[in-house]
This record gives sequence, C-alpha cells and structure tokens, in this order.
Amino acid sequence: MSFSWKTRIPERVANAQPYVPGEQKNEGDWIKLNTNELPYPPSPRVAEAVAEAAGRLRLYPDPSGTPVREAIAGRFEIRPEQVMLGNGCDDILNVCVRTFTEAGDPVGYLDPSYSLYKNLIINHGARLAPISYEPGFAFPIERFASTSVKMLILTSPNAPSGVAFSRDQLASVLEKTECPTVIDETYADFSTWTAIDLISKYPQLLVARSFSKTYGLAGLRFGYLIGSPDVMPYLHRIRDVYNVDRLAQAGALAAFLDTGYYKEKHTELKNTRNRFSEILEHEFGWTVFPSSTNFVFTIPKDKQGNESPSVARALYTFLVEHRILVRYFDNHPLVSSGLRISIGTPPEIEKLTQILIQWKRQDKPAS
Amino acid sequence: MSFSWKTRIPERVANAQPYVPGEQKNEGDWIKLNTNELPYPPSPRVAEAVAEAAGRLRLYPDPSGTPVREAIAGRFEIRPEQVMLGNGCDDILNVCVRTFTEAGDPVGYLDPSYSLYKNLIINHGARLAPISYEPGFAFPIERFASTSVKMLILTSPNAPSGVAFSRDQLASVLEKTECPTVIDETYADFSTWTAIDLISKYPQLLVARSFSKTYGLAGLRFGYLIGSPDVMPYLHRIRDVYNVDRLAQAGALAAFLDTGYYKEKHTELKNTRNRFSEILEHEFGWTVFPSSTNFVFTIPKDKQGNESPSVARALYTFLVEHRILVRYFDNHPLVSSGLRISIGTPPEIEKLTQILIQWKRQDKPAS
Repeated sequence: MSFSWKTRIPERVANAQPYVPGEQKNEGDWIKLNTNELPYPPSPRVAEAVAEAAGRLRLYPDPSGTPVREAIAGRFEIRPEQVMLGNGCDDILNVCVRTFTEAGDPVGYLDPSYSLYKNLIINHGARLAPISYEPGFAFPIERFASTSVKMLILTSPNAPSGVAFSRDQLASVLEKTECPTVIDETYADFSTWTAIDLISKYPQLLVARSFSKTYGLAGLRFGYLIGSPDVMPYLHRIRDVYNVDRLAQAGALAAFLDTGYYKEKHTELKNTRNRFSEILEHEFGWTVFPSSTNFVFTIPKDKQGNESPSVARALYTFLVEHRILVRYFDNHPLVSSGLRISIGTPPEIEKLTQILIQWKRQDKPAS
Repeated sequence: MSFSWKTRIPERVANAQPYVPGEQKNEGDWIKLNTNELPYPPSPRVAEAVAEAAGRLRLYPDPSGTPVREAIAGRFEIRPEQVMLGNGCDDILNVCVRTFTEAGDPVGYLDPSYSLYKNLIINHGARLAPISYEPGFAFPIERFASTSVKMLILTSPNAPSGVAFSRDQLASVLEKTECPTVIDETYADFSTWTAIDLISKYPQLLVARSFSKTYGLAGLRFGYLIGSPDVMPYLHRIRDVYNVDRLAQAGALAAFLDTGYYKEKHTELKNTRNRFSEILEHEFGWTVFPSSTNFVFTIPKDKQGNESPSVARALYTFLVEHRILVRYFDNHPLVSSGLRISIGTPPEIEKLTQILIQWKRQDKPAS
C-alpha cells in the first residue's frame, strides 16, 4: 500500500496559508509591544476565581456559560440569550463564518485588517472579498454600497490603523448592505463607543468582543458575541458546546466584574497612548493615526524626512537589536511604511521613546 | 428594511440539530454517572500548575504547545511534530473533519457511537455514511471493505458499548480502506492497547486522545492528536493557533507527568468496573458488554426477565428518583434497551448496586 497524504488533502487546505501569530518571547528582558496585550496583569480576582474553579475540573464545564452570559447581558442591557461565549474571539469569528456562509460565498472585510479573517474565510472554502480603504485609511463608505457579499466582517476600531469608525459610518454601512455583519470590537474598550445598541435597530448586526486586550487575559482565551435572539440558535449548532472551559468561565467572570481595577488601568493606558502619540507626531514629526485602541500605528521618518518600507524595516530591526519587539507588516502598501506599536507601561514607553530618539540621531539613509 | 435571519442561514445550518450534551447537575447530592467523567479529582499537581500559570495570563499562550507536545511524544516514542493539541478531543475531531473532507464527501463512522461525529460531519456540509454494527455490537469488518468514504472515524474502545476492537480488527480495516482514518481513543487508557504504534505502518491513521476521562480533566478541555508528520502541517492550518490556553497547557502537562497518581486511580476504577460488571452479569443475570472503558453498558431485565426499551427507561427513571443519573439512549435499536453507567467511586457504585437490587425487587411489568 502506498498512501500519500498529498493526494488526500482537499485543494482548499492544500493551498491555504497558515496564520502567523505575532512572535512570543519567553526571555524576561524584552519589551514586548507586538501583539497588543494589555501591559498590566489581569485583576488579582482572576487568579482567585481560577484557583477556586480548579477544584471542580473533574466535571464538564457548563455548556451554556450562564453566569458569565448573565453578567454580560446585565451590563449591556440585553437578554442573556443574546450572548454566546467563545474560546477567544477567534473562535467566535470562525463560528460566524461557518454559520453564515457556504463554500464559494464572498465574505467582505476591510483590507488591510486583522489577517486572521482571510484564514477563516479560506479555511471554510468561502471567497475573499476584500474592501479596500481609501488612501490614508479613510473609511470607504461608497464601496460598501456596491458590494454583494454574503457576510461582512468589520473591525471597529480598526487594526492595524487604530482608527475608529463613527457610529454614523457604521449605520450607513448597515443601511446599504443587508447581510450578516460582524463587528469585531476587540479594541472597543479603549474607544468611546460600541455598536451593541445598534443591534435592536439592525438585526443583521453582531458584535464580537475579546477579553485578551481589555482584561489582560490573552492567555485565557475568552471572547463573546452579542446578536439578535433570532440568530443565536444557529450559531450554537456550529460552536463546540464545551468550547469554554471551567477556568476560563470563572476567570472571565471575575475580570468582568472588577470594573474598578480595569477602569484605572485603561485610564493609565489611554494617557500613555495619548502622550506617546503626541511625542511621535509633534516632537518627531511622524505620521500617527489617531488611535482608539491600545496601540498606535505610526509612519516613521528617517533623518532625511523620508517615509518608506525600508525606513520602517530599518527601525524595526534597530528596535529588535535593543530588545524591543513591535509589529511590522510588509504585506500591504497602506501599512508597509509603518509600525504598529502596542502601548506598554509608562516605563516601557519611556524606554522606547529614548531608543527612538537614539535611532533618529544616528540613522543612516535607508539602503 | 426587513431583515430576516431565517432567509440568511444556509440550509446546512438551518437543518442541523444541536448536539445535546449529557445533563450536568450542580447540586451536590446527586450521584452523577452519566457523562463518563473520572470519579476522582485530578492530580493535585494540576491545581498547582494552574495557579502558577495564572500569573502569566496577560500574554498569549504558546501557539505550538511545545512542552506538552514533547512530553507526549517522549512517552509514545514519536516525534513532537507528530502531536497536535486541541481544546478538548472534540476540537481535534472537528479539525480533522474540516481538513480531510469537502462538502458532500461521505464520512464513515460506526453506528451507534459518539453522537457528536454526526454533528461535526453535518456542520461541515459533509455526508453521513454510518457503518452499522453486526448484532450484539460485533465488529462489522466486512462492511469496511465495501465502503468508499473519504474519511473514517472509529471509536476504540467503542462508546456506548464499552467494547474494545482488537489490533487485528483495526489493522484489517486499515488494510481494506485506504482513507484518512481517525481512531478516537478517548477511553483507551482504560483498555490494554493503543493504535499509536500502527501509525508508522499505516500513515493514514490518526489517533485522537482526550484528557477528560483519563486525567479527570473534563472541565479543562484538553485533547491531542497523533499522526504522520506528513499530515500535521495541513491540520495546523485549520486549527485555531491559540486553541489551547495557558492554564490548560500547564494543567495538562502536570497531569500527564503524574503517572503514579493516575496509575493508582485507574487500577481502582478498573477493579470497581470489573466487580460491578460481575454483579450485573452473574448475580443479576443481565447482559453486560465486556468493558474496556470507564463505563459499562448493560441491558437490564425486569422481574419477568424481559429486556426492552421500556424496561431500560423505567430503570432510568427509578434511578433519577433516587438521585442517580445514568445515560439512556433511545435513538438506536442496538442501545435503546440498555443503560450506559459511568464507573464511580466504590461507595457510589455500592450505593447504585443497592438501589438496583431495590428496583429488581419491586419493579412492576413495564407498561
């Protein structure tokens, strides 16, 4: 018998590219500003809740996740059955793509954005229908009117630009396109508004949320989706009923309820972000997109005042040499001259600022 | 605008049935023998490892899960790149179906078996190709020769019968059917053999394992898959790169390494199972399938010596009245006259035995 895996794998999978996650560093002396983790530890109540739940690991988790769903519903003044939990927001997005589309169906998403969307769409056999930004990340409102996709995924605020859409822009998309529309609000807690209350007016709208950034729980994998009660039964058929384990349910609930702790951390983070953005923009003279997230996207200038992919890459490399990790994307002209920098603690951003000043002084023309 | 979700959901999803998990009881005074959880708590090292990992939840988990994969590979004398981790074995099985098949492809599985397989196949748009047992759960070896499925899922030992196939039976299936074949070895640690070493001879073979039963960690969601190095890159494209969180990785590793603790618990469990099976078979005169798992499947007889769905259902109800939960399946003639009973602690099984004796004494002819 000569079995070959190559001949047994569907084309869809054979041609797929793996999603490449941001680099993780295990050594302690790196300043890690590349994957938008919260720079603060989660609420101390998370570890307490996790330790308590660890005593009940023998039994399957609650497949309905009722206590967390009720807490979330209470905060947003919706019904618990409008909330679905996921093993991270990525799980939620995957379940949405698999619930709403069939092989060959076009799925729209803003380009560039979170690159995982492409993997989820291709892995399901659906079709990429990217919607390009206008130059400078301007919201391409007209392009939505002409699209005929089966589903839309929008990131609000957007990554990697960090820029928030307005309520009016989103409402206008929802008026123009009558298809299932998932708003990925991973960064919305660093912004000033959420689309959740629009669901009652636009039932095709679903809002996906992550605990990774807001609650400093990237390592726990917990996300949730809010939508019309009419759509939830379909999504529950596709998700794994035990997708969220006991520890994640307990830890997420403890974090969600500790509003005082996070309010303080988020305020400090936004202050750091705003100060850092000002330095980049006004002291350095660099382009900085107005951020409503926990990162900034900036286009650095070399000594001669040039912006270019090689300038951005040179700075990225310089930072790595100084053990600071940020994110560089070379895959799209809108972003390839920039760097995405997660907001760290005040000392981390102070250190970064000093290294940036050093680079500005000594940098040579990009080769 | 009149948006209706009903018109937006693909037929595949609109017609799908949700998977119904075994009932969970939160009250403490139930004897819960319905979902095959280990009746013992996990190793105390799990809680220690979880507590330690809870200090690093701010950062994304290791997407490669290297430490656990290396430990697993070491034990089975394979290469770490032959191991993939999952958010429970259910996640692993889902990734396999999505990697190996396209919409419309027939997927074979023994019927009856773990009912989730059907959900995974239908949710992906693939086609159910059940392979029936011979009467009395005899292995239908001839039926495999004539099948032309794109993928096979076999449960070994089987659920809900508890019966193990032999190595020769499995090898003979692998000789006859040259298609990707996933052996679900959720219960293999209560058996006497594993198919893992057959992978080097039959590269189409993949072995899926769960920590829910073996390690008493149903609440943690951790499973793994072992296969040929050639197939792993395809599976990694389809799985979520962050599917296993930090706590699950740490807890699973601690459990896996505490072989002494589990050896003792598994020995006690198998002794309890064998004693209980003997009572049912020799003292009660009931049919009991020889179990290689942590449960027994038995066909109870009423006072008149009858076996029937109504007898089984009557006993199920009687046990519920005494706050003992077992599993009754009414969906297949091979199982609808029986009960699946998870093996509990010795006192739990002793209590159950007393209640069964009570039922045998007082039961009336089934109505």
